[in-house]
Amino acid sequence: MIRIIMHGCNGHMGQVITGLLAADADAQIVAGVDLSDHIQNTYPVYASLEACREEADVIIDFCSAKAIESLLDYSVKRQIPVVICTTGISEEQMEKIREAGRSVAVLKSANMSLGVNMLLKLLKEAAQTLAPAGFDIEIVEKHHNQKVDAPSGTALALADSINEALDNEYAYKYDRSNERVKRPKKEIGISAVRGGNIVGEHEVIFAGTDEVVEFKHTAYSKAVFAKGAIEAAKFLAGKPAGFYDMSDVIG
Amino acid sequence: MIRIIMHGCNGHMGQVITGLLAADADAQIVAGVDLSDHIQNTYPVYASLEACREEADVIIDFCSAKAIESLLDYSVKRQIPVVICTTGISEEQMEKIREAGRSVAVLKSANMSLGVNMLLKLLKEAAQTLAPAGFDIEIVEKHHNQKVDAPSGTALALADSINEALDNEYAYKYDRSNERVKRPKKEIGISAVRGGNIVGEHEVIFAGTDEVVEFKHTAYSKAVFAKGAIEAAKFLAGKPAGFYDMSDVIG
Amino acid sequence: MIRIIMHGCNGHMGQVITGLLAADADAQIVAGVDLSDHIQNTYPVYASLEACREEADVIIDFCSAKAIESLLDYSVKRQIPVVICTTGISEEQMEKIREAGRSVAVLKSANMSLGVNMLLKLLKEAAQTLAPAGFDIEIVEKHHNQKVDAPSGTALALADSINEALDNEYAYKYDRSNERVKRPKKEIGISAVRGGNIVGEHEVIFAGTDEVVEFKHTAYSKAVFAKGAIEAAKFLAGKPAGFYDMSDVIG
Amino acid sequence: MIRIIMHGCNGHMGQVITGLLAADADAQIVAGVDLSDHIQNTYPVYASLEACREEADVIIDFCSAKAIESLLDYSVKRQIPVVICTTGISEEQMEKIREAGRSVAVLKSANMSLGVNMLLKLLKEAAQTLAPAGFDIEIVEKHHNQKVDAPSGTALALADSINEALDNEYAYKYDRSNERVKRPKKEIGISAVRGGNIVGEHEVIFAGTDEVVEFKHTAYSKAVFAKGAIEAAKFLAGKPAGFYDMSDVIG
Repeated sequence: MIRIIMHGCNGHMGQVITGLLAADADAQIVAGVDLSDHIQNTYPVYASLEACREEADVIIDFCSAKAIESLLDYSVKRQIPVVICTTGISEEQMEKIREAGRSVAVLKSANMSLGVNMLLKLLKEAAQTLAPAGFDIEIVEKHHNQKVDAPSGTALALADSINEALDNEYAYKYDRSNERVKRPKKEIGISAVRGGNIVGEHEVIFAGTDEVVEFKHTAYSKAVFAKGAIEAAKFLAGKPAGFYDMSDVIG
Repeated sequence: MIRIIMHGCNGHMGQVITGLLAADADAQIVAGVDLSDHIQNTYPVYASLEACREEADVIIDFCSAKAIESLLDYSVKRQIPVVICTTGISEEQMEKIREAGRSVAVLKSANMSLGVNMLLKLLKEAAQTLAPAGFDIEIVEKHHNQKVDAPSGTALALADSINEALDNEYAYKYDRSNERVKRPKKEIGISAVRGGNIVGEHEVIFAGTDEVVEFKHTAYSKAVFAKGAIEAAKFLAGKPAGFYDMSDVIG
Repeated sequence: MIRIIMHGCNGHMGQVITGLLAADADAQIVAGVDLSDHIQNTYPVYASLEACREEADVIIDFCSAKAIESLLDYSVKRQIPVVICTTGISEEQMEKIREAGRSVAVLKSANMSLGVNMLLKLLKEAAQTLAPAGFDIEIVEKHHNQKVDAPSGTALALADSINEALDNEYAYKYDRSNERVKRPKKEIGISAVRGGNIVGEHEVIFAGTDEVVEFKHTAYSKAVFAKGAIEAAKFLAGKPAGFYDMSDVIG
Repeated sequence: MIRIIMHGCNGHMGQVITGLLAADADAQIVAGVDLSDHIQNTYPVYASLEACREEADVIIDFCSAKAIESLLDYSVKRQIPVVICTTGISEEQMEKIREAGRSVAVLKSANMSLGVNMLLKLLKEAAQTLAPAGFDIEIVEKHHNQKVDAPSGTALALADSINEALDNEYAYKYDRSNERVKRPKKEIGISAVRGGNIVGEHEVIFAGTDEVVEFKHTAYSKAVFAKGAIEAAKFLAGKPAGFYDMSDVIG
């Protein structure tokens, strides 16, 4: 039985993970950490990681970008692997995460769903086959009307994955309304649609002469990210130091 | 049998219409007009409308924006209705087209396909039902990589049709990558995808809470615009002076 | 403030409606009816409608097909309009529902979402425009892997709405794998996809020569049906006797 | 310069290939074979392969299933590799094709497009990742209203490719309207939509809990199959004896 510390246990995602793990035969939460204590959980909850006395095999973090530094310190010091799911991480913090990966197993991905991470891998192969055959590459993503950033981090991760497979020769294009030119070859267009409470859709389009290939991922609920975090935690427990991402989990 | 003058008969669209009308029981081309004479047609071809001696019930124009003024002059003087399918018409020319409509029947639409013109009508009803219920409105259009304008004229016509039904209170948004704000209510996002030789796809998305309604039109060949022009010509022959569009044709 | 009796208040949908109405300024639940009493609600809960003493303007029913007869009796006797959302209603029960509509306002629809009901209306117009122009009509619906009936009631309602607009001349086709024939004109193909926990997607396809028009509805959560039920209840309160459906609600 | 014999040069696909090769720097047609001689080509046309006197590196066949045996005989005897694109091949003929592959390079695929053949490969990987995680697999294909077989050969090839990656444990399901059962796990649902003149669309759906991954291929013109045949011919010229398919071409 894998023992988990849930960092940010009383937030929305922390509670979704708590619910999913209640019925899991292979892993359980042995302690939670949260400043808020308005929720009654089946495990002890502490105001800080430092206060936590339970032995654990892995930490899942769905807390706040502000808490990243203390989380990494604790993880390194206690040698407990950590799955970081918090978003809004700065470049500087990302650097610290990679650094921590030299001393302990750390996992961080732009998107925790199995589907998106599988696509990140398959798209490399698709790009290497279709781009040389003259296919143009475009991405359309759709999210709810409360999302303030555009395009989504996942859309950029998809574009980066494709671009990496194509020697990083492609530029990203977010708007074509200000110019009158034919589409350049070495371009990935990225469009962001916002509306309603759409959880998240990503569509990658390879448009060639007389044929189009599309790859699409639809998330119907945020629970899909919770499930991915649990898979990642099971994978990471017991792993040697290193910086991992979901592509390692899905093999 | 409706008698048609094909203005621009030796261009790509002129030839598509010629082909379609060869097997039409209700209408036929009695004369063509084109500066180029490299093609052998079953009807006489003249270098100018003025040279044309045949009697006709209607003119179909798929020529060039440059020839609009002389086309309108001829149509008014000879009292022959005209279906204008040429694109790239300036605001000034559009004004002259409307003016000609006071003396003769003139038809001009952003898109000649039956499907798009039906959607222009249905979208008004959809918008009036869904917008008050809090649905956000977005449009995604896809075209080939040689198209220089974005968004497409048809996407703008779809947005205009919706906006008109909503008291023109909505602003159009082409790019969200430069700001970090929640989506304003009174906005229609319009995204343009470019790739391969896609003939034309338009998708109108109404995204509400927990449900999304989508209207999509796909053109698989430019022949669909030729067919629309023929329908329009059959409709316009014999009509009194006025400015018409495809919504009149589809009733 | 519209006063609602929630029939089946402790079931999944009853609780979703309870949650939505907690924050509604125009309507509130004054009493619930449920055999199960394991949930603490903010309103009194009775084991039967008969036991209910509160005055009410309308009943929302998300209970069980078995309880339909007693529900209708109560509604007629007390002259309280009723919105029936229970599924699995037999033909015989449907007859009784229509009969009750002669004495009190009764509302019943195949699908309670605003989007689907709007489509039911718009599809009639689309069919009358596109079918005479030679477009073929097909429906594809997608639902979760626990759904035992196929095609869905909503898919059949969409087909019926289209067929009604076309003089009921079309036959429904569920399988083409057993024959080798060209598609007959007067046919609506209906395909059922089953997988995962998809809440419900319906796509109506009009396929013509060189162009295709699609209408698509996606439900992302069952809450959308709860919302529709509340809209219907607000509409039905105070209405004269009659058999209503959601098309009356959306105007 | 690769020298091609075009078998069936005056049919629709033969002419499309003739057009594409007219502008090709690496390959050219040196002779055509066709019983019909109503078309003027830039290369000599013979009534039979036997009559053909030109030296060639490869044969492209878009002729008729009836001519398969004599085509194979010629190919083996003259040791000229052959790309077989003719459809409607019987099981017995397929056996002869594989047999010929022991003496000369022979290539045959269910679908000649680059996009579909790439998907055949990627879907194996997707299936091996997603099926163990509980995703259900469904295929929806769309074709024109003149197609008599359903589902399409390509849809079956996609299903076979997935099934092979999953130890061939899955059964194919074409109709769910006759039963009332929950979806079995080891099933691939295949739906066939027919309408208008749709060239060919294939959508493979992996539906899991709260997320769906879709792979879609759209052919906009039959020219895409001609292009694939030319790619295959360039690949096959000079290859040793063997039975190849498009997956070898795309690497």
